[in-house]
Amino acid sequence: MFRRLVHQAQEIFAKRLRPTAAPQANGEHFQELNQSLDEESQRNDILDWSEFEGVFYSELLPKEGGSDKTTRFLLQLVYMLFDYVCKQSSRTNKVLDFHLPHQLLDMMDHCLHVDSEPRDLEQILSDCKETLRYCVRTGHPRFLNQLSSGLDVIGLAGEWLIATVNTNMFTYEVAPVFTLMESEVLERMRRIVGWENGDGIFSPGGAVSNLYGVLTARHYACPDIKEKGLLGMKQMVLFASEQSHFSICRAASILGIGTENLIRISCDYRGKMNVAELEAQVIAAEKAGKLPFFVNATVGTTILGAFDPLPEIADICERHKLWLHVDGAWGGSVLMSSKHRHLLNGICRANSFTWNPHKLLGVPLQCSAFLLREKGHLQSCNAMHADYLFQKDKNYDISYDTGDKAIQCGRHNDIFKFWLMWRAKGEKGFGVHIDRMFELGEYLRSLIKGREGFKFVLEKGECTNVCFWYVPPRLRDMPDGHEKNSELHKVASRIKARMLESGTLMVGYQPMGNLPNFFRVVISNPAVMPCDLDFLVNEIDRLGQLF
Amino acid sequence: MFRRLVHQAQEIFAKRLRPTAAPQANGEHFQELNQSLDEESQRNDILDWSEFEGVFYSELLPKEGGSDKTTRFLLQLVYMLFDYVCKQSSRTNKVLDFHLPHQLLDMMDHCLHVDSEPRDLEQILSDCKETLRYCVRTGHPRFLNQLSSGLDVIGLAGEWLIATVNTNMFTYEVAPVFTLMESEVLERMRRIVGWENGDGIFSPGGAVSNLYGVLTARHYACPDIKEKGLLGMKQMVLFASEQSHFSICRAASILGIGTENLIRISCDYRGKMNVAELEAQVIAAEKAGKLPFFVNATVGTTILGAFDPLPEIADICERHKLWLHVDGAWGGSVLMSSKHRHLLNGICRANSFTWNPHKLLGVPLQCSAFLLREKGHLQSCNAMHADYLFQKDKNYDISYDTGDKAIQCGRHNDIFKFWLMWRAKGEKGFGVHIDRMFELGEYLRSLIKGREGFKFVLEKGECTNVCFWYVPPRLRDMPDGHEKNSELHKVASRIKARMLESGTLMVGYQPMGNLPNFFRVVISNPAVMPCDLDFLVNEIDRLGQLF
Repeated sequence: MFRRLVHQAQEIFAKRLRPTAAPQANGEHFQELNQSLDEESQRNDILDWSEFEGVFYSELLPKEGGSDKTTRFLLQLVYMLFDYVCKQSSRTNKVLDFHLPHQLLDMMDHCLHVDSEPRDLEQILSDCKETLRYCVRTGHPRFLNQLSSGLDVIGLAGEWLIATVNTNMFTYEVAPVFTLMESEVLERMRRIVGWENGDGIFSPGGAVSNLYGVLTARHYACPDIKEKGLLGMKQMVLFASEQSHFSICRAASILGIGTENLIRISCDYRGKMNVAELEAQVIAAEKAGKLPFFVNATVGTTILGAFDPLPEIADICERHKLWLHVDGAWGGSVLMSSKHRHLLNGICRANSFTWNPHKLLGVPLQCSAFLLREKGHLQSCNAMHADYLFQKDKNYDISYDTGDKAIQCGRHNDIFKFWLMWRAKGEKGFGVHIDRMFELGEYLRSLIKGREGFKFVLEKGECTNVCFWYVPPRLRDMPDGHEKNSELHKVASRIKARMLESGTLMVGYQPMGNLPNFFRVVISNPAVMPCDLDFLVNEIDRLGQLF
Repeated sequence: MFRRLVHQAQEIFAKRLRPTAAPQANGEHFQELNQSLDEESQRNDILDWSEFEGVFYSELLPKEGGSDKTTRFLLQLVYMLFDYVCKQSSRTNKVLDFHLPHQLLDMMDHCLHVDSEPRDLEQILSDCKETLRYCVRTGHPRFLNQLSSGLDVIGLAGEWLIATVNTNMFTYEVAPVFTLMESEVLERMRRIVGWENGDGIFSPGGAVSNLYGVLTARHYACPDIKEKGLLGMKQMVLFASEQSHFSICRAASILGIGTENLIRISCDYRGKMNVAELEAQVIAAEKAGKLPFFVNATVGTTILGAFDPLPEIADICERHKLWLHVDGAWGGSVLMSSKHRHLLNGICRANSFTWNPHKLLGVPLQCSAFLLREKGHLQSCNAMHADYLFQKDKNYDISYDTGDKAIQCGRHNDIFKFWLMWRAKGEKGFGVHIDRMFELGEYLRSLIKGREGFKFVLEKGECTNVCFWYVPPRLRDMPDGHEKNSELHKVASRIKARMLESGTLMVGYQPMGNLPNFFRVVISNPAVMPCDLDFLVNEIDRLGQLF
């Protein structure tokens, strides 16, 4: 019976998802988002929500006998979500339907507001539909805007399951399976790093994982700070490259060390930390009577995708007894590729490591791991011995309770989806994905190389970041210098504005140091194919002609 | 066509979910979890995954033409999830199928491990089924173990949508609709508090919201700390009651102030802060040359559910120019009830406020808001001006970009599910829910009052926490004193162990100060009915007879 349902659903989708037009590079022949959903639903009488008119949430479970309504309501939602997922894969659909905030506020004025009154379930389904209409299709093959992109179906299944079981990660008692999975996955991740033992925890994002890094190092250097605070201690200083993520700087602020005591080390043209300068600065700080305690090395910087030289940095850390934290939020996943993992040579000498599977491995947001080479630090640093929450006289081995070693109390389940994807792909599958992303990066570089109007910021990037300026025709003959840079600086933001309005593509841009704004294409989306990169270059050319 | 699918699915569920036996209090006539799923699926040929044998993730989207397989795969998962949701509502099913960690490791040995090899989709579906088998049913009417419990179907729908659109909250650009919703909901929340303006952000849990509270107050008191650190400043001290959440203490540690500089104020027998002692301690700290800067008041303490007296605390904070943070992670939601919101009288005088809709309002995990009375502090405290991530030359009003005022960088979408629930219920619906929870709390107190073997820790609690000892027959005639307490201390953990093993109920216990372990029933689960509380009392009696 259920099989019949499945086959019928499949037929509907198969028919609806056949592309109706070839992708074009002028942005005008794309289907308007949701247009076909509306038309077709009328034709097929699919989105008939009349049974939910005047029916309120209180008719759903946990109301006794509410399972019928609940099932029917959720099926309607699921149908919309299937439609969304399948459509965003189609190149004939746009990436987004952009509106300025004040416009979108106007357009959603009929359904955005919350107040004292309940709405019926028909309205709730309609609210979901309106919401989906204006979402950015982050799984679209032409969404290359962020380090996190794409939609992994296995990961999605994992998220749906997590939401359904709605439990907290802080104890084995309420999350028995997930606690074991977290332990299993963290152990395997550490083994990939090259650590036999150690510890780790999943945190709400790379910035928090990096905060864990600085916090744990501070505790290791001066365990008294936990009880007594920083007052009366030596001035602590930490080190990170100019191109390190701003979360290291923010951690210095949060932890009471102060952003001025983060010493920024310059980078070479490729974005890699100058290690000679690092050692000189460490020595200078020691001579000045300060207490150097922490070095952050980045593997995969945000903009250029640079990998700091870990062996040399680890040598310096060993010589000066400094905690080495490696921020691999972006590039850490490269460890899964036997072809590219050499970029992280030396990683096993780190004391701690941030690794975000929600970036290069394509795990749905959020999924960030903080790993440590040695066990004990996390517990010793963060335990507050809140026996009233984490009882010690339980009937099971409480080393599986993670609540007292986190800086959070309750913790979202970020492990299951990652575990499930790992089951489905294995390290082999993750490796294939990463190798493909690197190949696509090379392909994009080959398209840009020598193409008129395109100029590399860095031709030989180490990761899948591809950074370049688009130089519009009127600037091409202008001599290099301040005036040209000043004009060039405005180009990327103008192209981006048109790109959003046309909805055909999403790529980011930013300045860096004194360099004018440039585009940074990030390839981490498994939906991307070479044709999308052809499109990207042509489309930027088309959008940029005017400026 | 789709309508037909929906009706057929409904028929299947209607048939399967009819309860087959009346609930019993001896724990032996409950259906084994998942047993009926297996039997029935064989009978109906529902869980036929043979088409997924030997089919791998790479056949799913974004593979061209992968939408059929994707739809069929996800439908099979959805079917399992529907089954889970409907079954956990049934009182004839157990709350959990408990095993000790080493047992569960054994039982899941065939499917727990991740390695280099991929598994086919049949195995992935089977993995999901195995996972669901051992999950704690947090939406079961007899799950009363945590401050967060229950499963709200509208919230679930919201989570499924969030997972599907898989975007990040840091900019309007990638989350246009959700950014507007966050702004709308935060504004409405502040209005309910009584603030006309202000600011706010959703954070990954109450502990992080409380960290924001202490951090913002530290910045307000000494803005130089952000750049220069704590060294050379006066010794900062902060105040919270003995029964405040441990995250305030952990914040003192993280922020470099030190846990010894958190001054714990004693509480009266109801768990409310002694305000006279607070003022005396503030004056003493000032006299000692220290810098008092922050007071935490708790509305809804974790164990007793006590509300600190806000007006008196606010007076002291005004007199001594201290930042008043109110931790309403648990009790903040009471503001939605016109009947009970008087418990938070004075809340509008706070400077900042933690309010977790994922607790008393039943929003799926996680959903925690940090609210501020005044705009500007959050930005000023946390901004790192990372132009390379949050460009200033965008084509839209960047005040909608929230990335630079968070302590995170990327941020999970915790707003949509809450927004959708608010649309569906309105403040009226939330109010009805809260009033019902309070009534059930009163009902449970009435059951316990005077019942043999049950003894209140606090008879007149202010919130829906109900705290009591179970005194087994052999201890009932023992005179009060150390020996009895020492015996009593062991009882709750033993009953809890049997409770987990029998799987009929889940209720928490903990010590408090010098008091021996006692049970704390928390009523926040919308599935709970009076009959479940009858069951609870009888079941604890049954389980406790032996001890």
